[in-house]
Amino acid sequence: MTFAALPKPPYYAVIFTAQRAEGDDGYSQTAARMEELAKEMPGYLGFESARGEDGFGIAISYWKSEQAIANWKKVGEHLEAQRRGRADWYVDYDVRVAKVERAYTMKNERGELEREL
Amino acid sequence: MTFAALPKPPYYAVIFTAQRAEGDDGYSQTAARMEELAKEMPGYLGFESARGEDGFGIAISYWKSEQAIANWKKVGEHLEAQRRGRADWYVDYDVRVAKVERAYTMKNERGELEREL
Repeated sequence: MTFAALPKPPYYAVIFTAQRAEGDDGYSQTAARMEELAKEMPGYLGFESARGEDGFGIAISYWKSEQAIANWKKVGEHLEAQRRGRADWYVDYDVRVAKVERAYTMKNERGELEREL
Repeated sequence: MTFAALPKPPYYAVIFTAQRAEGDDGYSQTAARMEELAKEMPGYLGFESARGEDGFGIAISYWKSEQAIANWKKVGEHLEAQRRGRADWYVDYDVRVAKVERAYTMKNERGELEREL
């Protein structure tokens, strides 16, 4: 996993924090498929994720608009994945939809600490 | 690591995605200290993080306002941690400041799939 290459803000982030249940049970295959499928959606901008050994993970998908997020949530194959997620793969999860207002990188900050914020 | 208990939106999220350099070099101790220090700041709401074995991680701190974020960024001990981060601990990082507009949980969605989004 690595950094998403994103346009300048504003854009939207769907922050998905989740505790995985034990065992794979088809999760990895579906997760890979969902990443592939999301990429094909209009308004998809990128994806970043990380999960620790304790099974707690954060996945963030980035989108051009709220409408793009709503469209993706309704895709049939994704609805089925969400259902499996609730039934089998996650102990619990939270979803937050946020508007990214500004962004900066380590390179931006090198030597110009007061540039942002 | 686990879920942050947060109030209802709106509130702000600082999304920090980072690739760690090899070795600890004082990182873990400072990270724990920064978590402790952030908690004491006015407007601090919570913190969530995950890092994979590849060293790619996502850390999100949640805040009441942009002003609370700006105040935290300027705390002396935190400025020194940021400097060490750029110099020693991270290969690269991105920071995104986002306004969380809505949120829901797995329990919200059980049995009421169309409730949100």
